Amino acid sequence: MDLLSIASQTRSAAGMLARTTPETRNAALATMADALAARADEIRAANEQDLAAARQEGLAAPLLHRLSLDDKKITGLVSGLRSLQSLPDPIGQISVRTELSPGLVLERISCPLGVIGIVFESRPDAFVQIASLCLKSGNACLLKGGREALQTNRKLRDVLLDATASVGIPRTWMALLESRDEVQGMLSLDRYIDLIIPRGSNEFVRQIQASTHIPVLGHSAGICHLYVDADADAEMAVRIAVDAKTQAPATCNSIETLLVHSEIAPAFLPALKTAMDARSVRLLGDDRTRTVIPCDAATESDWDTEYLDTILSVKIVDSADEAVRHINRHGSRHTDAIVTENKSTAETFLAAVDSADVFWNCSTRFADGYRFGLGAEIGISTGKIHARGPVGLEGIMTYKWLLRGHGETVAPFADGSASFTHRPLPL
Amino acid sequence: MDLLSIASQTRSAAGMLARTTPETRNAALATMADALAARADEIRAANEQDLAAARQEGLAAPLLHRLSLDDKKITGLVSGLRSLQSLPDPIGQISVRTELSPGLVLERISCPLGVIGIVFESRPDAFVQIASLCLKSGNACLLKGGREALQTNRKLRDVLLDATASVGIPRTWMALLESRDEVQGMLSLDRYIDLIIPRGSNEFVRQIQASTHIPVLGHSAGICHLYVDADADAEMAVRIAVDAKTQAPATCNSIETLLVHSEIAPAFLPALKTAMDARSVRLLGDDRTRTVIPCDAATESDWDTEYLDTILSVKIVDSADEAVRHINRHGSRHTDAIVTENKSTAETFLAAVDSADVFWNCSTRFADGYRFGLGAEIGISTGKIHARGPVGLEGIMTYKWLLRGHGETVAPFADGSASFTHRPLPL
Repeated sequence: MDLLSIASQTRSAAGMLARTTPETRNAALATMADALAARADEIRAANEQDLAAARQEGLAAPLLHRLSLDDKKITGLVSGLRSLQSLPDPIGQISVRTELSPGLVLERISCPLGVIGIVFESRPDAFVQIASLCLKSGNACLLKGGREALQTNRKLRDVLLDATASVGIPRTWMALLESRDEVQGMLSLDRYIDLIIPRGSNEFVRQIQASTHIPVLGHSAGICHLYVDADADAEMAVRIAVDAKTQAPATCNSIETLLVHSEIAPAFLPALKTAMDARSVRLLGDDRTRTVIPCDAATESDWDTEYLDTILSVKIVDSADEAVRHINRHGSRHTDAIVTENKSTAETFLAAVDSADVFWNCSTRFADGYRFGLGAEIGISTGKIHARGPVGLEGIMTYKWLLRGHGETVAPFADGSASFTHRPLPL
Repeated sequence: MDLLSIASQTRSAAGMLARTTPETRNAALATMADALAARADEIRAANEQDLAAARQEGLAAPLLHRLSLDDKKITGLVSGLRSLQSLPDPIGQISVRTELSPGLVLERISCPLGVIGIVFESRPDAFVQIASLCLKSGNACLLKGGREALQTNRKLRDVLLDATASVGIPRTWMALLESRDEVQGMLSLDRYIDLIIPRGSNEFVRQIQASTHIPVLGHSAGICHLYVDADADAEMAVRIAVDAKTQAPATCNSIETLLVHSEIAPAFLPALKTAMDARSVRLLGDDRTRTVIPCDAATESDWDTEYLDTILSVKIVDSADEAVRHINRHGSRHTDAIVTENKSTAETFLAAVDSADVFWNCSTRFADGYRFGLGAEIGISTGKIHARGPVGLEGIMTYKWLLRGHGETVAPFADGSASFTHRPLPL
């Protein structure tokens, strides 16, 4: 079937899915969980085919690990589906209720966006996670997985669609796209697709953003900073820096640059160096830093680099204001933190840094939907529109305005014979 | 000064403006109101220059009327500024507060988007309205007005900047762009501009949307429908149809197509025709409509046409479902209404129509920020992302996540020696 027909079918299904009850959608999630567990053998067999082909093509070990869907990962997916069931239903939440005039009542009510297009790389578990978040929130979806995971994704699609069909949801609510051409095609279907979520490398996300006028939820870089203020507890600052750089260096919420106030630099930097040396982190310092500790020189381009590795650039600044200016200029508006015992400096920093997440005296690694307690994470957004920072189910919802009357027209309000009450009503 | 320098200055000012107190911003609005009143002579003189030039160029009367800024319009602007002062401050509203673990508290707090780029056509009063909404919400702005209004806009800029400077706000918070090249340039400055708001014709909004990757808040068409159900009160349906078509035919929330159930068509259509004839509205009917009342034939393209005029296309359908399908296919996701006495049919319609505003037994003309009681209207959005339908100050706000701790790191949570409480705290 051609892409336009698939997209058109998916949009029709979206209308139907939006009107299912929470009970139906939760029953679908339960059936999906049961089916994944019951058909784990089939899924692993399909995954073995993909793994065998990938080994033949000489795929590197980390990629093979991402591609593999073993029993432990399947068990994780099953328990993820069960916990998704217990989240509050995101559809039909009323956020505004106003009497415009007696008998004429306005409501603003949450509803699904419609059709979500998701493009993700090799990890087949992402397929199940995203599809289930869409189902929970009443969104239909078009999914494009990695080429290497094709057999696994086809099997997962069949298992999930069999499960949702068994509770009466039409199989057209989700479709698997298989070619790159279909992704290019999808990016132009703004009449059919409401949001694109790209998951993968920064390069990949940037490419997607540049090739579509459909809104994109994602983040193209994570250049996060830690600023160690003059009034910092130096021991705390070292501890936070170590966590923010080394707890998981390849993640987007790890720090790439450390800024330190000149007054505390002589006390702090040697301690930082000892701690980072012990963890094999390479420091790159600006000229002033290198007068305090020995390390390689940072160049201008280091301030704009996301290493995703055990490398940390270090710069001395003369004020919290200078740190803020550096961050707002070089950062990626993701997550930035200050360490200070001075509440006033901290609050100024929290207000002035123009990033999704701004932290005081704690690690940037807390920037995550699970750690924030959102229940589920769709992704992290460095955009400011619609959703910012870690994004839960809210990120794939919109709202509509419902107005219920008894024959009211605007004319009498325009000629002054009627007037608005605009009375807020209880939600 | 070149555009990049202007944009860079405006972005710096945005950081400052975001941190002003509500008192400062409200004082600025008061000073702006006073200055407009005190300097009305200067403003009218500048406007006279524009009007004289426009008359020489032979501008049509409606355009001259839009361009003119007379005492009555200035008085309206002054009272608009005073009522904006009394709106609640949109900055710093806390929508989430969660204890992640004892002593580690997360807040989600509203803040301005940053820099708004606004492109509007000839009406100089729009300049003041938009600039003041930006100021109230702590957003800096780049404004491009119509070429015909250049002298007026320059004068308004000077008056407003003098006023805001007198309360300590740097003059760089707002800049007036004067050339088309600058608009093209602005559309590519995604690092400096957070949102584009185009005001003007549909054609114009579509052009802007197609030429930028910066998010655009706006609506490119208003193809609104009224569906008269089998269970409608026919007299009410005529009354609503007349209001929705004729109360202001050139507005985006007026109806362009009326759908009527076949069972009520014989009773309803003759009454509709009588009422519309009396108001010189031209009806265009499908074949079935023309077997009931005499009128010209509608063609397929009529279902996709926004007349913005006293023309109404009419189609007979056999069910509410068919009406919903027609609306979701041909509508512009703006505002659509049903007339019916059947609550169950109404609720299905409200849930199934995929538009920003869906109304029951009232006129589509109520779709408006003032009538909705939003206090101020930035515009109407037919997109589903960020803001939908009539958009108040909320539409130019975003939020950030603040996390305040006492040295917490992620490592102990990852190795199981600490655990999250995720306790909701009072807002």
